[in-house]
Amino acid sequence: MSTQPWQLQARKAQDILRQSIPTQWLLPVDQLPPATQKNVEGFPTKSGLLNDRELDITSMTATALVAGMETGILGAEEVVIAFLKRAVLGHQLLNFATEFMAEKAISRAKELDEYRKRTGKIVGPLHGVPISVKEHIGFKDRTCNGGYVAWVDNIAPQDALLLQSLEKAGAVFHVRTNQPQSLMHLCCSNNITGTTTNPYNRTLSPGGSSGGEGASMGFKCAPLGIGSDIGGSIRAPAAFCGAYGFRPTARRIPATGVLLPEPGHESILGVVGPLASQSVEDLELFQRVVIDQELWDIETSLVPVPWRRVTPTRDMTIAIMWDDGCVRPHPPVTRALRHAKEQLQAAGIRVVEWEPYKHAHGWNIVSSLYFPDAADSQRALLAQSGEPTLPLTEWAFGYSSGKTLTVGENWALNAARDQYRDEYHALMKSRGVDFILSPAYVGTASVLGESEYWNYTAIWNILDQPAVAFPSGLVVDPVLDKVDPRYSPRDVVDAREWRKYSPERYEGAPVGLQLTGKHFKDEETLAAAGLVSRILLDQGDTLSKL
Amino acid sequence: MSTQPWQLQARKAQDILRQSIPTQWLLPVDQLPPATQKNVEGFPTKSGLLNDRELDITSMTATALVAGMETGILGAEEVVIAFLKRAVLGHQLLNFATEFMAEKAISRAKELDEYRKRTGKIVGPLHGVPISVKEHIGFKDRTCNGGYVAWVDNIAPQDALLLQSLEKAGAVFHVRTNQPQSLMHLCCSNNITGTTTNPYNRTLSPGGSSGGEGASMGFKCAPLGIGSDIGGSIRAPAAFCGAYGFRPTARRIPATGVLLPEPGHESILGVVGPLASQSVEDLELFQRVVIDQELWDIETSLVPVPWRRVTPTRDMTIAIMWDDGCVRPHPPVTRALRHAKEQLQAAGIRVVEWEPYKHAHGWNIVSSLYFPDAADSQRALLAQSGEPTLPLTEWAFGYSSGKTLTVGENWALNAARDQYRDEYHALMKSRGVDFILSPAYVGTASVLGESEYWNYTAIWNILDQPAVAFPSGLVVDPVLDKVDPRYSPRDVVDAREWRKYSPERYEGAPVGLQLTGKHFKDEETLAAAGLVSRILLDQGDTLSKL
Repeated sequence: MSTQPWQLQARKAQDILRQSIPTQWLLPVDQLPPATQKNVEGFPTKSGLLNDRELDITSMTATALVAGMETGILGAEEVVIAFLKRAVLGHQLLNFATEFMAEKAISRAKELDEYRKRTGKIVGPLHGVPISVKEHIGFKDRTCNGGYVAWVDNIAPQDALLLQSLEKAGAVFHVRTNQPQSLMHLCCSNNITGTTTNPYNRTLSPGGSSGGEGASMGFKCAPLGIGSDIGGSIRAPAAFCGAYGFRPTARRIPATGVLLPEPGHESILGVVGPLASQSVEDLELFQRVVIDQELWDIETSLVPVPWRRVTPTRDMTIAIMWDDGCVRPHPPVTRALRHAKEQLQAAGIRVVEWEPYKHAHGWNIVSSLYFPDAADSQRALLAQSGEPTLPLTEWAFGYSSGKTLTVGENWALNAARDQYRDEYHALMKSRGVDFILSPAYVGTASVLGESEYWNYTAIWNILDQPAVAFPSGLVVDPVLDKVDPRYSPRDVVDAREWRKYSPERYEGAPVGLQLTGKHFKDEETLAAAGLVSRILLDQGDTLSKL
Repeated sequence: MSTQPWQLQARKAQDILRQSIPTQWLLPVDQLPPATQKNVEGFPTKSGLLNDRELDITSMTATALVAGMETGILGAEEVVIAFLKRAVLGHQLLNFATEFMAEKAISRAKELDEYRKRTGKIVGPLHGVPISVKEHIGFKDRTCNGGYVAWVDNIAPQDALLLQSLEKAGAVFHVRTNQPQSLMHLCCSNNITGTTTNPYNRTLSPGGSSGGEGASMGFKCAPLGIGSDIGGSIRAPAAFCGAYGFRPTARRIPATGVLLPEPGHESILGVVGPLASQSVEDLELFQRVVIDQELWDIETSLVPVPWRRVTPTRDMTIAIMWDDGCVRPHPPVTRALRHAKEQLQAAGIRVVEWEPYKHAHGWNIVSSLYFPDAADSQRALLAQSGEPTLPLTEWAFGYSSGKTLTVGENWALNAARDQYRDEYHALMKSRGVDFILSPAYVGTASVLGESEYWNYTAIWNILDQPAVAFPSGLVVDPVLDKVDPRYSPRDVVDAREWRKYSPERYEGAPVGLQLTGKHFKDEETLAAAGLVSRILLDQGDTLSKL
């Protein structure tokens, strides 16, 4: 087998990764589950690598960790070591990391402990919280390749503004995570560090494009992670991996220092946002910490809208969207929505039905706006290194009409987008609906390479509405989630997606759901999703004690 | 002379205008000043058309008018009639209107009086305030042509959202005002209703593109007007006509129902904003009334940033930009800046110098973004009717490179724009500067057809910073504002603009200035401009009494 130049380039990144792994925590291969074992999510407790205290630490929320470090019960160093161990193990099983930053993270944690000891105070609201970070969010003096072999030699000149703000609040960055070629798969394969898999079933995708983050959250390698989302890239990984993810309204979280192939493309804005392994509340913590720093005074594209503290209330109307009118969700998803409906109604929340409004139209707009240049920018990057174009990359590029839009055609789509937003917003108001509960994806985690239908998430990108993915509490059940042979698909797309389903293919997959709020009602959406999530997971909620 | 089809179309709009003029207030031609009389600004007091009370009314601020109507000293009907009379006279002298709406306005004013009488209350904070409106802001069931003959038959399906909001607050719309062909001149000529002139000197331009508004404000045909601004189109008319005008930060004032040839073109956003004939405070009133209505809940492209009440303070730093580093201002402008510096320093305000930062670069970006399609949209509209392309239209179209940008080239400019904004913002902060005082134009009102240099205003469009134009209190003075023969222009553009100046050409022209604040600091900018304006006009200010 000949070695192509692109493979030499890719090897540089592989070397960076390999050399960064803290080898003291690597398990010998014969102590790992066999490659044929699909579900590895529970392995940490059996691995012997983490002691009980470390297992406890890695099951805590960021909020609880900070509280523990503030009181002095926990130390930042032991916290980051616990998560680093789990991350190393996770990487052995799921191939989710692109680079470990163990030494720097531990050194930073020691400083934090020192500060706490000296002053009796914590540095900030994220004191000592380990955060995993999607690779294309740049770290000063480190490679930032965005999933492109051509960019392996690209070195970020400074930390992304978001990272600076989180670090100021006390965060510790310990591991960088994988993403697909082109950043445009709801899956996670590239020609650099390969394919990341799902901790609940390693034949399944962790989602994408923040797939490394999905795996990181699902395996609890960090309480918080950072992803980015232009069509579902935060929410799909969260939903696929039994975790939590939030797509904020655009222009609230800084993007300075995030590597993208098309800077200045603003018809459809990718947004950066949080994932969490434990709770919706940690998503809120992330948003609050970042937005409280008023970074619009540095990145002027941000809107100067402060973060509002919102108390969750049961006095709200949630509409359930069973189906987007285009592609029928798989049976486990429908069952999860039914279950949610019952639980929410039992909790005294008003639940109504949501008739979808022109989702095919929305998809036409958003898919046309992904690659207005017919993906020329991306193809040029691929050609630059000579790396092969992966199937899901071609799939995404296929959303473009194949011809470059003129600026005039681009404007017409922008105008249609704005009108659609206004109409959807007006409809939610006129129907008296505060939030829409819907599938986060047509099914549970897709089989690797099969994530082709984006519009359960992408619709909220084109509408620029805040949306949270979270676990329904259910898992695919071969008895309850049988194929329904009576269903007659509407068209080829619907048929294609329906054909993919059989419960055996999705063994052990958690079922995620999605709650969407109105444009710029990020605070209310997270408050509501937190309440809904607690109800679904039967964790009770503080409100019930009132 | 043969009549072309486009002339027949134009005649329709001329007929609408002619038939709308309330003939009872037309003065016989022989009672008007001779066509050779340049300055007609003071004519209303001599005309005999308005009685003393009406002259008083038309010299009041919107704020004072509302107070008068609230106490019952004034009636809405007499107020609108006073301004209608003045507007009819102004139109006879300056050709600034495209349509009068006298009957509807008077009927609405009667309703307001009736409401006040019945309830003892006013309808809202603009109760009975007459507002003139630039033509391309649509009124339901009326023509909306945006200066294009091709659009004379275009009928607006509903009132623009902004008009709805102002009407709800009590405003009365009595006259629609002229704009240039293509809306892209800092002047005011089209093939429909012709050329509007400046009340201070009818050989001069009232500015543009909101030139009808400039004339309306300068002649005091309304206390408030509505214009739009993508390169200076509110501020140039205000400055040229001795009035006040405000370019808000983008996405704060609704644009739904405003006719533009390129809906969805968002690389450089035109903004709608107020002009005022009497004071900066009226500009603030307009912004407050509109933004208090939270119209982002209807037009989702607006940012949900509430209007803040800001108290003016002398504890601020104003930097004076004497020259943009590209084109030297004419002598009266430099004298006005010197005068302002002295007055501000005497008032105890910190005044420093502003070294301009890459204004040529800024111009390259903004001018390239005006017509990314090489003005194809506009040329198609002109071709549709066959109307001749006017010289200043060709001038503006010439800003484009002559070739259509690809979407990729457009993105590169967007990215350069965002970076330039961040850099400029950082520079103001690092220099400790709150506001920049600068020329509003290279000179005073330009000679008709000569307004070729835009970048004293356009620079703040590309930077998306709020900027206020207001009178310096000075007028061109042949003795004080002599040509400086020693000046050696930097390049052909500088030479071209410098060559235009001699005090005789600009006889009687008021000198406007411009105060610019930071991105989204609209409230602070208006508060500061109000204070500066009062100091310059030696009106004293409430602070001096503290």
